[in-house]
Parts: sequence; C-alpha cells; structure tokens
Amino acid sequence: MANPNDPTLRSWIDIPPTSDFPIQNLPFGVFETPERGTRLGVAIGEYVLDLYAVCQYGFFEDLDLGPAQPKVFRRRSLNAFIAMGRPTWRAVRQRVSELLRHDNPALREEEAMRACLLRQSEVEMLRPVKPNNYTDFYSSIEHATNVGTMFRDPNNALLPNWRHIPIGYHGRASSIVVSGTPIRRPNGQRKAPDAEAPTFGPSQQLDFELEVAFVSGRSTELGSPVPIQYAEEHIFGLVLFNDWSARDIQAWEYVPLGPFLGKSFGSSISPWVVTLDALEPFRTAGPVQEPEPLLYLRQLDAHNFDINLEVAIQPENAPQTVVSQTNFRHMYWSMAQQLTHQTSNGCNLQVGDLYASGTISGSTPDSLGSMLELAWKGTRPVPLADGSERKFLLDGDTVTMRGFAEKDGVRVGFGEVSGRILPAII
Amino acid sequence: MANPNDPTLRSWIDIPPTSDFPIQNLPFGVFETPERGTRLGVAIGEYVLDLYAVCQYGFFEDLDLGPAQPKVFRRRSLNAFIAMGRPTWRAVRQRVSELLRHDNPALREEEAMRACLLRQSEVEMLRPVKPNNYTDFYSSIEHATNVGTMFRDPNNALLPNWRHIPIGYHGRASSIVVSGTPIRRPNGQRKAPDAEAPTFGPSQQLDFELEVAFVSGRSTELGSPVPIQYAEEHIFGLVLFNDWSARDIQAWEYVPLGPFLGKSFGSSISPWVVTLDALEPFRTAGPVQEPEPLLYLRQLDAHNFDINLEVAIQPENAPQTVVSQTNFRHMYWSMAQQLTHQTSNGCNLQVGDLYASGTISGSTPDSLGSMLELAWKGTRPVPLADGSERKFLLDGDTVTMRGFAEKDGVRVGFGEVSGRILPAII
Repeated sequence: MANPNDPTLRSWIDIPPTSDFPIQNLPFGVFETPERGTRLGVAIGEYVLDLYAVCQYGFFEDLDLGPAQPKVFRRRSLNAFIAMGRPTWRAVRQRVSELLRHDNPALREEEAMRACLLRQSEVEMLRPVKPNNYTDFYSSIEHATNVGTMFRDPNNALLPNWRHIPIGYHGRASSIVVSGTPIRRPNGQRKAPDAEAPTFGPSQQLDFELEVAFVSGRSTELGSPVPIQYAEEHIFGLVLFNDWSARDIQAWEYVPLGPFLGKSFGSSISPWVVTLDALEPFRTAGPVQEPEPLLYLRQLDAHNFDINLEVAIQPENAPQTVVSQTNFRHMYWSMAQQLTHQTSNGCNLQVGDLYASGTISGSTPDSLGSMLELAWKGTRPVPLADGSERKFLLDGDTVTMRGFAEKDGVRVGFGEVSGRILPAII
Repeated sequence: MANPNDPTLRSWIDIPPTSDFPIQNLPFGVFETPERGTRLGVAIGEYVLDLYAVCQYGFFEDLDLGPAQPKVFRRRSLNAFIAMGRPTWRAVRQRVSELLRHDNPALREEEAMRACLLRQSEVEMLRPVKPNNYTDFYSSIEHATNVGTMFRDPNNALLPNWRHIPIGYHGRASSIVVSGTPIRRPNGQRKAPDAEAPTFGPSQQLDFELEVAFVSGRSTELGSPVPIQYAEEHIFGLVLFNDWSARDIQAWEYVPLGPFLGKSFGSSISPWVVTLDALEPFRTAGPVQEPEPLLYLRQLDAHNFDINLEVAIQPENAPQTVVSQTNFRHMYWSMAQQLTHQTSNGCNLQVGDLYASGTISGSTPDSLGSMLELAWKGTRPVPLADGSERKFLLDGDTVTMRGFAEKDGVRVGFGEVSGRILPAII
C-alpha cells in the first residue's frame, strides 16, 4: 500500500495547485444537504467525498469496520467515527487515498461518482466534533510575554510558573461554533480604571485570538494519566480556532478565577479536521525549553508542526486586509506536552474534546495573534486596505483565519475559520 | 389535584421520619441493576420507584409524554427526560405523588409493586446527568473573604469586582462522578514559596469543597441571554457537590488563568436531583446586596433556599466526625443571578449542565466549607473523633456531605455525596 502522504501521489480529480485539499491531506468533516441529510465527508480539491455513499457502495467492506458502519457515517459529528479508534481512521484515510488515486478507476464510473462526490459549494459544513470538554492553553511565549508586558511588568513579563507548566484553563464547550456562524457582540460588565462603578453594555474591546486546536482521539479513564511518549496517539487531528475575546469584560472579571464571560460568548472552528497523520511530513522541533521541563513533560525528537497561519479582517463592503502572519511551529509547549499535562492529575479525556493552543504570536509586530497585541492596547491602530483603522473589531467586520503546511510541492491546508460580527442586542 | 408539596400528604409506603425522601420530595435519579439495566427512578423513603416500569404499567398514559416514552425512562442520564420540558417534569412528579399517596391503591397491587419498587440498597446509583458544561461559582461572601484574608490582604479581602459580579470559572465536566466513586489523590506540580524549583508528585494539600449545584433544565440559543425574571424556569433541580481541590497544585498553577489541574481530577455529585419545585417551601431571602447589583442582576422577592448542610470526615476503620455545619441560605449571589450572569453575554445553556455555588462557608469557625478554612491554612488542625487531627485530607479518609431542608414537619433531603481518598499512583 502506498503511503497516503507520498508527495508523488496524484488524483484523477483536477485539483488546483493552491488548493488546501490535495490527495495528501484528506481531512474529515461533517456536511449536510437537503437531499442527503447529515453525512461524514472528506475534502478533496473543490469536492467533498460522501463517506456514507462510499460505504454503501461497498468500498469499505473489507476494512472490517464492524457493526457501527454504515450508520457512523451519517452522524452529526465525527465523535462516533473517532471513537472507533486510530486503526480505523488510518484504514479509512488509506482507502480514500486509494480510491482517489489517478490510476484507480473504481470511483470514476459515472454513477458512483455522482453518488459519492459533491461540490463543496453545494453543501453546508457543520461543526465537525461535539466537544464535551474544551481547554484553552496559553503556550506561545511571545503572546504570554506581550500580555505580561502590557498588563504587568515589562521586566518580569512571564510569571514564575510559565516556563514550568503549559498554563491553561477550562473553556466553555457549548458556545463553540463552526466557521461561518456570525458572532454577536456580547454585552457585559466592564469598568474603566478611572470609573467609580462598573456598567453593563456592549463590549467596546472585541478581539479575535488566532489559535490551533487539537481534537482528542481517545477517551481515557479517570485516574489514568497519559505518559508523554503516548500523548500523540491520543490526538485525532487539528483545526483552526478563533477564540473570540471581549477584553473589557475579561479585564474586569478575571481576577482571581480566570477568563469567563469575556470568552464564552463564542469560539469558532474550521470545518475540516486535518489528521495528525496528514501533518506528519511537517513535524519540526520546537524552541529550546529553558529550564528543561520536569520529567513527566520531557520529550525527545520533534513535536511541533510547521503550519503557516494568517488573519485577515474584512470590513462590510470593503476588501480584506491580512493583519497578521505567523507560524504554529513557534509554540513553546507542544500539543503532546499539553495533553500529558492535562491528564497528569488523572483528569480523563473524552473523544472529540478540543484543546486549543492559546493565541499564537510571532516575534515581530506583523505576526501577532490578537488585536490587543497588534494595536498594542489601542496605542497603535492597525490600518486596513479601505483606509480605516482598527484598535478592536467593529460590527460588520469579518475575521478570517487560514492555515497551511507546505513541503516538497505539497500543500496540506486547513481551509479557513471565518466569522462576522453582529451588533450587540441592546 | 393536590399540591405535591402539601405537608399533610402521606404515602402508603412506610417512611421513617428522618428520611430525606418523603412523598413531598420525589427527587429524580438514574439507577442500574443487573436484571433491569439502566432506569430512571424516584426516591421514596428507602425505596426507588422504577419510572420505566411505572410507564410500562400505563400509569403515565394520559400524561401525553409523546413518542420519547417509554425509552426516555431507560436512558443512562436524566438529560433526555429533562429536555422534555418543565410541564413534563411537573406532570410526572405530580403523577408519582398521586400513585404513592396513602389513599391510592393503584400501585399497591402486589404484582405492580414488585415491578415498580426496589430497595435503594439493591440498586446502583449512576451519575444522574451528563453535564456538557460545568461552571463553578464563588458566591459565598464568607468563603471569598476567608480566602482573600489568607492569601492576600485581610483589610481588602474581597476583590473590587466581587460585589458586582457572581465570579465564576469554567470547570472540567468529564471528571464529575457520582457519590461513592473513590477519588485518587492527584499528582501534580507544586512549588513551596521557599523552594527554588517546582517538583512533581502527590498533592500534599488535598481538600474538599462543600457546594450545592443546580442542573439546567433547558437549552438556550447562543446569543440569547436569560432575563433574571425567567432564570429559575431554567433550573431543573439541585444536587450536593464536592469540588475536590488540591491546594498546592492550585496555588502554583492558577495565576493568571484560574484553577485548572488543582480541580479537574474529580468532582462528586449526589445521585438524587431534588427538583426546584420540591424546594419551593424553603425559599428565603438572601443577604442584602450592597451595592445594589446592576439592573440585569437585580431581583425582587426571595431567591435563596434554606438548606442545612454538613460535612463529615471518616478515617479508615474509625468513626466519622462532623467537621462543618452551615446553610445554603447564606449565599450572597442567588442561583438565578448566577444563571442570568452566565448567559448575559449570550452564552448558551445546555440541558444537564451543572452550575455549582462555590464553597459554602458560614460566619463561624465550625461552619466553614473547606479544610483550607477549617484548619486555616494548616495553622489550626481539626481534631477528629478518633484522636487524630487533620490539616488536609489523608489517604483512606471518606468525606461525606449531607443536606436537607425542613419546615412544618416535612424534611426534604438530598441524601449524601461521599468519596474516599485512594493513594496517589507513584
């Protein structure tokens, strides 16, 4: 069997060279059409492969998927499919790769093709997983340093625990939505430093946070930590993650128990989950960790991933401006370290959980992952292509994040996560 | 129809006067037996009423429960039943009350009785709800003041936001377990103030937190806040909640994003959900709020509940000692205010969510809701009946929390939430 990541693989489907979804990617998602209802699918070029239809055609028959199929391919989330286990994800991705190869005629027969392939423009993408739990980490040293510099002491920007622990907090799972869902500007309590008392009203400091999240691929038992060397086996794949933030609400509420309503009004994820398997060629070493982490967090080899990221803002009826470009490879703490730390106290994982990186910022002014940092607390407004400028987001703004890895002429991308700001309800 | 809270109601089942489960209570839970599998039940005296069997007998036929029954009574959680809506909970509780009244012969026929009633000692109780989301509030002014006094400034113990916002944080839903589940002492990072670097190992400061949590009874749409006057309609019922805490892990990790692994190794809930309807007679005014809350949190009438609470510690092979007695009525922020605040930014509720009060402490040294406060950071160890003393919990200790409301000779209780500490895995 060919390695599905082999850069020489070609598909019989015509795929533009700038597509995020060549045959080497094959990310999983959930789509819906009026005719088919809800189905699991795989993105290929401008198409989506209907896994339920592929299964009904008998192409998975010898994969030994057990009694869960074909129903598992008709669910409203990937969770049940993910719960079938890593050998299953890999076997299905391998089979899909074979079916789409330029030299395989099986799916090219007209009737099968019509049944199994749809244009992405003809389907509605749903939230790919049902996250029972969501953790937001804080693992970019540049971001943590920037925030510490702005709000505390520039000379001691990083708190004493930061280089020892992948700092994180529990987030709100219920308000995680799929790309394209509009985000309503939240109301909330906030208090200006010089105001006598707080007031309640629309947030005046609405922000995005550029993040990447991983989806857990396995449930574990309460009381059973995951050792660092097995951590990546518990990761199904990755999505782009916009952790919308209301800075004024957050600033007033977050002491001493952390972010709450400043975050829980909505988080957006991209619809296609790029498997960790597909990202294997883009593995790279992370930054040197100094001091060396405690033994339970210590890892050999390369556990970061080289993924280009960007953020664009598009005002209503105006062109978009790319306001930030950075890379996931800069993360100080790896996903494996995050997962092992999360379970080190015995906390259990559940299939479909989301573990977000925290804001990803680079070291230059044009590589910062939030408006808070880009406009440096409002002190250097960000110019947009239409001549306007932004300290924070305005109603009608659409924020779009994109990401892709590239090597040996192969581009494995995430598509995008996008959301438009609706005015607050007053 | 008789009011199911009527204190003059009697059942044909013999119920000891000290029972938490008279005919005026009728809390809902989920139980399992090898023969019956998983069923929804109602506690009555020392018995559990099997709702699936009651339904099969046709006693719910005229309640118009729709196509979900009888299957809804055979689920692994109350969620689907709760999702049927408040009129349904009320109709079922009303019907159960009628069936159990001393003057109703319907269920007393021998065969029906055998089919529908089991001894609680013969069933295993499961976690009653599947919480998709869990928030832990911090709403006892005594507790917040104690913590602020110990760790910050006794003269400014309450932070500036505390009297304006029901402070809270997202907790970990996956590790919430039912009473009786042993709790494994967590490993984690901690650093003594005078230590040069952190170490990883078993928590040395394992604690309980006495809390009450409410279960949300309705899912709401993202972007749709719940006005304060409708908040209680979104509450199904209440459970006792032990928010186990590892103080040393928490102290090292919690700045700046709040509690994380110091809490997520386990939280325990009581198996019976006492409905808000059953607690109606115990409604009482909360403390005066000064300053008056902002308009969206302002409420008239009485929104606290008079529920006696206690905590007991039982070392292995030794008698138990009641170490704290307090009352839920002291909470500064009401459940309605918590729920309205939670949704004020548009955050959506999901059926079965848990919203915990935060540690409930009274104003006297014997009414504090955690070992941290009872032993005042280890400075005044708590004596136990067996002659030992505790600064924090030891392996083998069983912590049991109990709660009941009482009025007009009627005692509406919660049973208990209990958990035994297992040694850490090294």
